[in-house]
Amino acid sequence: FQMGDNKLPQQMNGLAVNENGDAPTENGDVVTPWDVSSGSATGVDYDKLIVRFGCRKLGEDLVDRLERLTGKKAHPMLRRGMFFAHRDFAAILDRYEKGKPFFLYTGRGPSSGSLHLGHLIPFMFTKYLQELFDVPLIIQMTDDEKFLWKNLKVEEAKKMAVENMKDIISVGFDPEKTFIFQDFEYMCPPFYENIVKIWKCVTGNQARAIFGFVGEDSMGKAAFPAVEAAPCFASSFPHIFGKKTDIACLIPCAIDQDPYFRMCRDVAPKLKAPKPSLIYSTFLPALQGAQTKMAASDDSSCIYLSDTPKQIKNKINKYAFSGGQQTVEEHREKGGNCEVDISYQYLRYFMEDDERLEEIKEEYSSGKMLTGELKAIAIEEVSRVVMEMQERRKSVTDETVKEFTAVRPLKYTF
Amino acid sequence: FQMGDNKLPQQMNGLAVNENGDAPTENGDVVTPWDVSSGSATGVDYDKLIVRFGCRKLGEDLVDRLERLTGKKAHPMLRRGMFFAHRDFAAILDRYEKGKPFFLYTGRGPSSGSLHLGHLIPFMFTKYLQELFDVPLIIQMTDDEKFLWKNLKVEEAKKMAVENMKDIISVGFDPEKTFIFQDFEYMCPPFYENIVKIWKCVTGNQARAIFGFVGEDSMGKAAFPAVEAAPCFASSFPHIFGKKTDIACLIPCAIDQDPYFRMCRDVAPKLKAPKPSLIYSTFLPALQGAQTKMAASDDSSCIYLSDTPKQIKNKINKYAFSGGQQTVEEHREKGGNCEVDISYQYLRYFMEDDERLEEIKEEYSSGKMLTGELKAIAIEEVSRVVMEMQERRKSVTDETVKEFTAVRPLKYTF
Repeated sequence: FQMGDNKLPQQMNGLAVNENGDAPTENGDVVTPWDVSSGSATGVDYDKLIVRFGCRKLGEDLVDRLERLTGKKAHPMLRRGMFFAHRDFAAILDRYEKGKPFFLYTGRGPSSGSLHLGHLIPFMFTKYLQELFDVPLIIQMTDDEKFLWKNLKVEEAKKMAVENMKDIISVGFDPEKTFIFQDFEYMCPPFYENIVKIWKCVTGNQARAIFGFVGEDSMGKAAFPAVEAAPCFASSFPHIFGKKTDIACLIPCAIDQDPYFRMCRDVAPKLKAPKPSLIYSTFLPALQGAQTKMAASDDSSCIYLSDTPKQIKNKINKYAFSGGQQTVEEHREKGGNCEVDISYQYLRYFMEDDERLEEIKEEYSSGKMLTGELKAIAIEEVSRVVMEMQERRKSVTDETVKEFTAVRPLKYTF
Repeated sequence: FQMGDNKLPQQMNGLAVNENGDAPTENGDVVTPWDVSSGSATGVDYDKLIVRFGCRKLGEDLVDRLERLTGKKAHPMLRRGMFFAHRDFAAILDRYEKGKPFFLYTGRGPSSGSLHLGHLIPFMFTKYLQELFDVPLIIQMTDDEKFLWKNLKVEEAKKMAVENMKDIISVGFDPEKTFIFQDFEYMCPPFYENIVKIWKCVTGNQARAIFGFVGEDSMGKAAFPAVEAAPCFASSFPHIFGKKTDIACLIPCAIDQDPYFRMCRDVAPKLKAPKPSLIYSTFLPALQGAQTKMAASDDSSCIYLSDTPKQIKNKINKYAFSGGQQTVEEHREKGGNCEVDISYQYLRYFMEDDERLEEIKEEYSSGKMLTGELKAIAIEEVSRVVMEMQERRKSVTDETVKEFTAVRPLKYTF
């Protein structure tokens, strides 16, 4: 999950030579579980990505149906296309309509230190979905993946997972409805059985085509995809779902994870389990612009959840790429470009008020609003989100982590 | 473990094209974890195999040292070269001499129905070693491997493992000193952690070179070798060894398993664990001759542990390849050929009395003893071994299996 922080040379070589379309496309976009970059200031061409991955655009019809079924206005990230693509999301809405069970599954490949704003997006949206649907949520921490891909000891990967879990819990999840686990700590017969079943259904050639692995990659990289796929199946968690297997799964995540779940959907019928449904987000752009996403390894590219209001203010003022003009006069005359303006882009993710956002867009595009003013609004909104996280983070201890990771039933019965 | 019952076409293709020397050698021998056959009536050329695998011949010096250290005469299978090769067996004798801890590890890929005599060899010898050294024994049932390689359901593989365990227990192991586990049932964080560590140390290219995997093989086949290697490390069993890691491992098994442990020995230093030592047996020949080993899938090739004395008598009389001459007159004149005579070869494994065995060899080679007489002796010895097994098998129940598979400390403290 969300591996893109560091490029690995062998992965890049792999991608450069493989034939699965994961090498840069004509427009210079690279989107794999291990790397995301774009040649364009407006970022990845998501429409082209949908075609390449073979998933579907999440259109207004589905958003409308969600609102009708739930009687609630859809989340801003959904209305504004930040969650822009899906696989079989309608199947989940069907289940919701009929009162049939499903659960949410998402995860994270733990990295050192604090999470950043980009990491937060799928979790904020997942929290919204959990509250909307009132279903169990499972969050996987792929500490084994990080160990396999990085120059880390097992203990280091485990520790990072625990620290990251504290940030994730601070998004505001409910321990009665949420099970969080680390692969290194949870591995058990029901989970392993699904992993082995997935292993049996996918050939080495297929895995290489999907993930771009090369011969120099470790056995572990080739084995890992089944570990991220197995939690799609309710039978991996008998303490939550008992022996019931007809429980579908909806996975909110960034679109770079699609290869895992494409594979998993192919495999599901052989396991006599429902295919997981997916709902995919775009990438929160780096401060410097949408050519890359936020990278925890590059301090100046991102806003950490541990940043102070002062740091947030300085970073946005100093680094946030501006769509404004060179001089105030020119700006007043020509107006700013919201498409490439990072402050504006952040507001699309975090500002709840649609009307205010539209106002800002108009004022900035017309030149009425200056870059400094737009940045001030972005600083306010981003600070609000981060401060709320930090406030909740204060009460999250090792004990809280134990509460979420305990192997136990949730409040649901199946 | 002991996979050789059925050839798998894709494996054979893999072996035919790979470059690791596992394809048939000049003399027509094939020895891999999945296939064993020879072009010669005297069976596999084990001296050449030692050179090809890069292990060592188990010579008289080591047998002498074992006898000196333990004050006991070595097991007939050791004295007669049925256990004929090793890796670092001296390191285990050093440990024994210094009172440093080690354990025994062996295993089996479960197959349907009753085990046959060939399966018994490593377990009989393992029992001898356990009694000689008085150390913990760990037996792995690779039900996951069988599931991955064969057209089986998980439940079928698990059931076969339980049935096979009953046969293995009937060899006479001590539940206070022996832990038996199925991969599908035991999988847990400490075991998984070692698997992942091994995965990280071996590239896909290396695995293909060692095992002959090809692109059409499942991801599971490529992932599995680490599952057979991980029990070499004491840290996979904290309930037995606590947190102590400097506990070496001696693996008695048939030589076709060498690829797994060659790999494991390469990896051990990176895991800061002792390299496993190995002691390798030859293959018990099929009734039809030493060109193949006993195969459970071919009823006429083998003697099952469930065969009645009458069946054993009929099978040996009917099928056991004879080194005798065409007529009694010719036999009296030229004598029989013990090298290819299967009845005589079985006596080398199972007859305890060295002098009597030597006598038989002389009498048969000189023509004094006829084929029928030799077969009668073989029938007697084989029946004795099988009947002893069957007697012990009577008291082995599902409860006994639970006793051996319970995750618990053994009688040793480390």
